[in-house]
Amino acid sequence: MSRFLDARYQALQAYTPGEQPRDMVYIKLNTNESPYPPAPSVVEAITAGEVELLRLYSDPTGKELKEKLAQLYGVQPDMVFLSNGSDEVLNFAFMAFGGDGVTFPDITYGFYEVFGDLYRIPYEKIPLKEDFSIDHTDFCGKEKMVVIANPNAPTGLSLPLGQVERIVASNPDHLVLVDEAYVDFGGESFLPLIGKYDNLLITRTFSKSRCLAGGRLGYAFGNPEIIADLEKIKFSTNPYNLDRLTLRLGVATVEAEDYYREACEKIQKTRAWTTAQLESLGFQVLPSLTNFVFAKTDKMDGKALYLALKQRGILVRHFTNPRICQFNRITIGTLEQMQALIAAIQEILEGNHEKL
Amino acid sequence: MSRFLDARYQALQAYTPGEQPRDMVYIKLNTNESPYPPAPSVVEAITAGEVELLRLYSDPTGKELKEKLAQLYGVQPDMVFLSNGSDEVLNFAFMAFGGDGVTFPDITYGFYEVFGDLYRIPYEKIPLKEDFSIDHTDFCGKEKMVVIANPNAPTGLSLPLGQVERIVASNPDHLVLVDEAYVDFGGESFLPLIGKYDNLLITRTFSKSRCLAGGRLGYAFGNPEIIADLEKIKFSTNPYNLDRLTLRLGVATVEAEDYYREACEKIQKTRAWTTAQLESLGFQVLPSLTNFVFAKTDKMDGKALYLALKQRGILVRHFTNPRICQFNRITIGTLEQMQALIAAIQEILEGNHEKL
Repeated sequence: MSRFLDARYQALQAYTPGEQPRDMVYIKLNTNESPYPPAPSVVEAITAGEVELLRLYSDPTGKELKEKLAQLYGVQPDMVFLSNGSDEVLNFAFMAFGGDGVTFPDITYGFYEVFGDLYRIPYEKIPLKEDFSIDHTDFCGKEKMVVIANPNAPTGLSLPLGQVERIVASNPDHLVLVDEAYVDFGGESFLPLIGKYDNLLITRTFSKSRCLAGGRLGYAFGNPEIIADLEKIKFSTNPYNLDRLTLRLGVATVEAEDYYREACEKIQKTRAWTTAQLESLGFQVLPSLTNFVFAKTDKMDGKALYLALKQRGILVRHFTNPRICQFNRITIGTLEQMQALIAAIQEILEGNHEKL
Repeated sequence: MSRFLDARYQALQAYTPGEQPRDMVYIKLNTNESPYPPAPSVVEAITAGEVELLRLYSDPTGKELKEKLAQLYGVQPDMVFLSNGSDEVLNFAFMAFGGDGVTFPDITYGFYEVFGDLYRIPYEKIPLKEDFSIDHTDFCGKEKMVVIANPNAPTGLSLPLGQVERIVASNPDHLVLVDEAYVDFGGESFLPLIGKYDNLLITRTFSKSRCLAGGRLGYAFGNPEIIADLEKIKFSTNPYNLDRLTLRLGVATVEAEDYYREACEKIQKTRAWTTAQLESLGFQVLPSLTNFVFAKTDKMDGKALYLALKQRGILVRHFTNPRICQFNRITIGTLEQMQALIAAIQEILEGNHEKL
């Protein structure tokens, strides 16, 4: 820390992304990336001509991509916001709308808390129920902004749409942010209700279901006034937040919708297979509607399992929070990757058993 | 504006980027882009394989590119910060170090003021001298952060290194940010003095001299503690601020240094030609060390000239600030583009003369 840093940030704890070790080649099941590459037409969209055009600034309004997304999802272009990953729109939303405080579950995306600390927004973390589900009544009638990841991470659990609606309807004077980063793997989107509520912001990402984690593209839906507020923050921090290639990739991705729908279906099938295998090995697996599963076993400590898998070249994500430290979050990869995972877990559990 | 927007941002005026009209094809001399494409080796670096890897997150530490830049510029990797355009590092620097207030010239990059407004940082705008140069003594011994664009924009004028050093040395308890966005077109960098002062941050960009405006890549040099502070802000807002392709483009660009040095030399030659031509037409042209010139003529109103050029398919940048509204900022394009500009100005001035 330098002696110039503003006092308000001196104690700030930044977010810790999932590890990206480069000491060896891992089967990477720790950051919820897609095991599938972008669609062939998306790869072809990045021509030498497009790269040459990088001498020119990108369109700071993202007009073409907004129109494409609006058309695909049946909204107006002025209800769409584009961001450098969905983290950026979450950041702007906390900044713009969090003034009266924020509330979110105790177990959820770890970044919400960091945004709260960063902007010195008082936040209330409401414990999930014993079974890790959200009690929606806890989030009704709050006098502050509400943030709900649906499906939630790292649990993978979803709230029924009717319960989300009750949260939104009961907080008419504050923004309700529904983070739908993982909605495309069998979850139910709140998007059809976007026209009904003016206090709703739905955030999405191309990182998971659109196989573009490394392209950094997020988006959000909200009423035009909320979107205009987010644009104001963007144009006051970094107007050209999206580069030309990312915008081009976004357009090509929206045009290849069928490819991605199929990829999501494959992941759901592999998720069902993985869940069944883990359960047959005695794991408790929370019912997931995402591209990961959250699982634990009484036979072995969560962290020890994470470390044993890492030693065998398989990375999963372990969290130190005591409430969930017996679990590991396992991204759904290809069937072959998950077969390797299951084989490794079997081997580890057997070795563990012999030691006992 | 929505009814949820935090009161502190309600009156905020966002930055207005240069216009990017799409009604016709313009000779675009309004946003200081390079007329040259990225180096052939940079274009070739973006292979189909690289695009397929976009399914994976980018390296949030930017290790490889930091090492490349450190090597090229003779500093340690922990003295390098990477950002999504240099606007992003400016944003983080105002946020992190602007607490006691900020000062900058009255005529300079318009975004500094927006950051001040955004973070409610009191800022002092110190008038440039009559000839639009900076009086460096105005910026010595300030009890606040100092921001100096060197060369300055939109004037194109530079401060001698000794005067910059006096500013840095006389403000030991506050950060001095030297914005070197335009330094590669004949300016003198403050970088050789980076090891001597712990209160110095130098910001740079790939947008101008590296022909990558649309790639969104900026960087900064400072002592490791200042860089660590900026990293903390980055990891608390958007850890994956740079996408994989941008990082790859950055590495390939650093490796093609000769190409860019040559491109910068061509621009300096074309700048000399353009300046001479404008002067022969009776313009006052400030002596520029950037990839643009700032020029006015007594024969015609600045805004009228801007509009007449636009009508003829040539875009330059006009600012409404009364102190500079007789000037236009003209990006240096190819020689052919500048010949077209000069011909158009001749035509406009002749037509204007006939009307009188």
